[in-house]
Amino acid sequence: MPTVKDVAKRAGVSVATVSRVLNNSNKVSEETRQKVLKAIEELGFKPNLLARNFRRDKSNLILVILPTIANAYFARVVKGIEDTARKYGYGILLCTTGNSPEIASDYLKLIERKQVDGAIIASAKISKDALLEIDPKKIVQACEFYPFLDTSCVLIDHKKAFFEIVDYLIKKGKKNILCAIGNEGIPSEEERKEGYRQALEKNGMEFKEENIIRCRYGSTEIYEKLKTLICSKKYDAVACSSDLMAVGAIKAAKAVGLKIPDEFAVTGFDNIMISRLYEPSITTVAQPMYEIGEKATEILISSLENNSFSKERVILPHDIKTRESA
Amino acid sequence: MPTVKDVAKRAGVSVATVSRVLNNSNKVSEETRQKVLKAIEELGFKPNLLARNFRRDKSNLILVILPTIANAYFARVVKGIEDTARKYGYGILLCTTGNSPEIASDYLKLIERKQVDGAIIASAKISKDALLEIDPKKIVQACEFYPFLDTSCVLIDHKKAFFEIVDYLIKKGKKNILCAIGNEGIPSEEERKEGYRQALEKNGMEFKEENIIRCRYGSTEIYEKLKTLICSKKYDAVACSSDLMAVGAIKAAKAVGLKIPDEFAVTGFDNIMISRLYEPSITTVAQPMYEIGEKATEILISSLENNSFSKERVILPHDIKTRESA
Repeated sequence: MPTVKDVAKRAGVSVATVSRVLNNSNKVSEETRQKVLKAIEELGFKPNLLARNFRRDKSNLILVILPTIANAYFARVVKGIEDTARKYGYGILLCTTGNSPEIASDYLKLIERKQVDGAIIASAKISKDALLEIDPKKIVQACEFYPFLDTSCVLIDHKKAFFEIVDYLIKKGKKNILCAIGNEGIPSEEERKEGYRQALEKNGMEFKEENIIRCRYGSTEIYEKLKTLICSKKYDAVACSSDLMAVGAIKAAKAVGLKIPDEFAVTGFDNIMISRLYEPSITTVAQPMYEIGEKATEILISSLENNSFSKERVILPHDIKTRESA
Repeated sequence: MPTVKDVAKRAGVSVATVSRVLNNSNKVSEETRQKVLKAIEELGFKPNLLARNFRRDKSNLILVILPTIANAYFARVVKGIEDTARKYGYGILLCTTGNSPEIASDYLKLIERKQVDGAIIASAKISKDALLEIDPKKIVQACEFYPFLDTSCVLIDHKKAFFEIVDYLIKKGKKNILCAIGNEGIPSEEERKEGYRQALEKNGMEFKEENIIRCRYGSTEIYEKLKTLICSKKYDAVACSSDLMAVGAIKAAKAVGLKIPDEFAVTGFDNIMISRLYEPSITTVAQPMYEIGEKATEILISSLENNSFSKERVILPHDIKTRESA
């Protein structure tokens, strides 16, 4: 295993400088920092996690609060968090809340107790009260932004992304497009609904509340709801808020006997692996999942290590992946 | 939110008794314990996680060590762990190691530091040295069993399961069956290989080392390896060690133009969601993922709370799910 000395040698700097980079100190020039990070990568150096804990009143652990791990979306976001945290000598601990704000509050207590240094809240539902006592520099929101929480955040422009994919469906000639989104109370879902509305409006189509299907992100609920709705042959597409919903929608269209995408087109959201593997492969919005995790972690570690807080709102670019389903 | 008082009232017992059940005390009769657990479930009562921490030298947290969360298999195991832990008033923290034993050792230090009370090692690679200093009652192995670790474990009989699915392929008339398993150094993979060997032997077929394909659990590597192998039309089936491998194998068979299952049959392992959703749906070995998590957690909490260790080796039943791919 390469040591910090090997890194220093390869980068042509002192051990103290490597240490400063690992501690994310701002006393290092960007050029030097890049040299050290390059050496770390080339050597496959892994800082001894948690080892620095004893020197300072720090755990060198970051808590990641997720609604669930049963979604490949979060696995990619977490990978971005993990790789970045490790680069700076932090370990990460994950906890899942099943979207219960009470459970999220319980876990946030680990910050007060100094069992973790800070937390990344990735999509998990949270209540304002839970954060009242917590220093905002110790929290970053990722994927989702609850505006009542005064923290930095990293996410995509959900409204614009949904606007674009609905606009794409319209350009493909679709005239009666359903919109399948998550249950109420999640800000990004309301953003996406607004994107859907604006795309219809821009193309001179009428928005109808009844064309909004609210359901869970999995494939089962949408399958049931859609099967009933689409046998009327009134609809020719559905824009879904997750790739698993899109799988359920494709199954429903097949069950009813509609040809995909000619008679019924389906789009997903996120670009998780199944959207590429499924047959037909699924046209979807690619979220930069890994990069969201990466950036959120960089912001958090930087404010923890510099002990300073500047509220950042980072919007990362998304991308439309056109495949067979639409 | 229901309180512990509501639970006591519904169960017809005192608050102290509910507390004893939550603390997993052995001073409660099984009948009373069941009454209280029923009331907890009916009311949807959620014990205040971590709240008990201050009364005793305990964190009421369990660490779960996983190789990755990028596999739906672990999501189900973790759900079983989580639900069970919560029932007994524990929170869980997940960490992933990318199968590096060094990283696993780093995280295990959280036990010594009393940041967590114990750990469930779910499949993650681990070294013997890492556990030398740790009280064996604070560790349970799940899914996988490293025999050099003197801990309790909960898993299926991997050899028997693989034997059965290969035997099933042979009964379906397959004569040249490939075996696609994970890379070396993982005990369950060697068990599965042995199950494959025994199934061939029982049916008077020759075992050839060259028919073993070693690859990662995802769909990409097997796709590449298989595409080259099967254009010879020498093989008529592959038994895979994961459902994602099976997806890759199906894609390879389709790419080569083989009809599934008649010309080429594919089986998976685990029974994760994609095996049911994929087209063709995938014949696979269903592991009782949720129950593995549940049982491992019960064993761990029981030995933590009673402060006693008896080494248990629990083998849970598996099940062959026959679907379209074989």
